[in-house]
Amino acid sequence: MRGHRELTAAELDEVLTWSVVRVARFAGQRLAERLAPHGLNPIHFGVLAYLVIEREMTQADLARAVLLRPQSIAPLLDGLAERGLIRRTGDRTRGRRNPVQITDDGRAALETVWDVALSTNDLSDAGLTTQESAELNRLLLKVVHATREVPQHDFYA
Amino acid sequence: MRGHRELTAAELDEVLTWSVVRVARFAGQRLAERLAPHGLNPIHFGVLAYLVIEREMTQADLARAVLLRPQSIAPLLDGLAERGLIRRTGDRTRGRRNPVQITDDGRAALETVWDVALSTNDLSDAGLTTQESAELNRLLLKVVHATREVPQHDFYA
Repeated sequence: MRGHRELTAAELDEVLTWSVVRVARFAGQRLAERLAPHGLNPIHFGVLAYLVIEREMTQADLARAVLLRPQSIAPLLDGLAERGLIRRTGDRTRGRRNPVQITDDGRAALETVWDVALSTNDLSDAGLTTQESAELNRLLLKVVHATREVPQHDFYA
Repeated sequence: MRGHRELTAAELDEVLTWSVVRVARFAGQRLAERLAPHGLNPIHFGVLAYLVIEREMTQADLARAVLLRPQSIAPLLDGLAERGLIRRTGDRTRGRRNPVQITDDGRAALETVWDVALSTNDLSDAGLTTQESAELNRLLLKVVHATREVPQHDFYA
């Protein structure tokens, strides 16, 4: 793609961003399909997981953690609260921190689907050996950890 | 996450799908930021690239290639056609194949941003050496190539 105005599929494959977006789409759809019978989607899974890890989070921090825009997280949390999987622990007054916690039912739901989520690590039907999947995750996590924002914990407030 | 109802961030990191989605979001946002000054987004980039590779594609095949729903691709193509970067080569009658080609201006636009797209391969500020980035892409491409749908070329029609 330098002056000759031609391009091959192999050259497009050299664009790493394009590769990672395609694999994320494939893996995300697979996770979504496997969570669906449990009434959860990948974002629900992320919300429940982070709430077990962090015990309490604000809506804003949860939105950041699961890669949603702040305005998109509220209706999703409403749905989980209506199902009794999370609870809001503060006033919802504008300007408040809107802390959210997981419930016992939420913990049970996460436990139920935990092995479902881990099952998507098996990419043996998608070109990778177990060792290659582990190496792929190791490299991805290096990027995750190098680029992650510092979480806004209480002690920074 | 097996009965003890606790979970650490390290355990969540074991879910490969979660890692690849996070890195795709990071890399996609970076590509979007770098393409924006050229009036293009990552999907535009993908459309132009595939049209140079394939010379002519139907709307449906283009949608599949750039991971959009079929109903989402038409307005995006309308925008690119209005800017003279692509042209529709057939009748848009319902049921027709709606073939699309790139224009000379579209090829020039793609050439202009090609090095921008390749620049996102450099993750040295995001935790990966050049060798690690190459290995990451090699593993991702194994998945891409193992799971890719067979393109609907004319000779299959």
